[in-house]
Amino acid sequence: MIDQQYPSKLLERAVAEMAKLPGIGRKTALRLVLHLLRQDSAAVHALGESLVRLRDEVKYCHRCHNISDTELCDICANPLRDASTLCVVENIRSVLSIESTGQFRGLYHVLGGVISPMDGVGPADLELASLVERVAEGEVKEIILALSPTMEGDTTNFYIARRLAAHPEVRLTVLARGVSIGDELEYTDEVTLGRSIVGRVELNAR
Amino acid sequence: MIDQQYPSKLLERAVAEMAKLPGIGRKTALRLVLHLLRQDSAAVHALGESLVRLRDEVKYCHRCHNISDTELCDICANPLRDASTLCVVENIRSVLSIESTGQFRGLYHVLGGVISPMDGVGPADLELASLVERVAEGEVKEIILALSPTMEGDTTNFYIARRLAAHPEVRLTVLARGVSIGDELEYTDEVTLGRSIVGRVELNAR
Repeated sequence: MIDQQYPSKLLERAVAEMAKLPGIGRKTALRLVLHLLRQDSAAVHALGESLVRLRDEVKYCHRCHNISDTELCDICANPLRDASTLCVVENIRSVLSIESTGQFRGLYHVLGGVISPMDGVGPADLELASLVERVAEGEVKEIILALSPTMEGDTTNFYIARRLAAHPEVRLTVLARGVSIGDELEYTDEVTLGRSIVGRVELNAR
Repeated sequence: MIDQQYPSKLLERAVAEMAKLPGIGRKTALRLVLHLLRQDSAAVHALGESLVRLRDEVKYCHRCHNISDTELCDICANPLRDASTLCVVENIRSVLSIESTGQFRGLYHVLGGVISPMDGVGPADLELASLVERVAEGEVKEIILALSPTMEGDTTNFYIARRLAAHPEVRLTVLARGVSIGDELEYTDEVTLGRSIVGRVELNAR
């Protein structure tokens, strides 16, 4: 059905647009579109409008660059959060993941990616200057670098460390690497297992 | 991330609308929506518009009830198609599947479902009266019943046969049931395998 001739140009266009979404092939796109065809017109309008409105009206917090409906996001605006700890993340999804753990009460700084020369992403494309500015304000005591455990993530970590060389009073930390909770040891990759041995911690059971 | 508090109502609404699509959970919906957020505004408008336009402007062929941009669909309007053979199918997807085989040159009749008392679908909810009318016009010589090989499909087949009792001159056929091409015999279910034995055909190799 890949080079399928559709009986309707409207159908064809809707399927083509839907199939542009990541992970949605033409077959899935057709299934979704035919599903929408069976829904109320109002429901389809609601979907279309919600996507367009999000795209056109979304704001980003001017402090942490997280997605927000207001100039200052709910997290930055919350006086109960610890403004002395910044968690530096790649994107909004990382913020949502960390928030869902309930283990972090500090503030975020969303870079918008990691340094990746291969993809043409340099330091200037990321919210790095604004990070340095936030640190220069003097309130930040610790920066948790929570980027992807990839070469690009590590490169970005080193770059940030260098940019903040003038602030030795700010503690720089990274997420602990180790065996996943619930994972079988034999299925853990060697690099992670190796790091978890080097970075072993005291058993606090006694 | 299921009961996630999103940092933006716009984001929350877009994710909620996207997650209403069949087979799209909230995690996938979030991934798709954040992808759209990184696209041009024009691309997002194109997606939204194509869905809304399809839903609001779509037509159905007044003969076969297939989706169409015109009153009479391209298949029904094609003089090269054999108007004496009707293939009765459940939905548009069946039409696309059969068309993609390139093995059928007749016309279609899209019922819009099968009789299913459990789902509250009775004969009056389907395009059955219009099928009888088409047959009464006298041009149809064979009806291929290409419904799902389910209890509901079989029920609908029997119902159609009864409704067409006044037209014994019209040949009623169903799709051949049997072992799938390329399938291992041991993985074929017993009912299908049984039917393929009962309905065995002459080997035309000699």
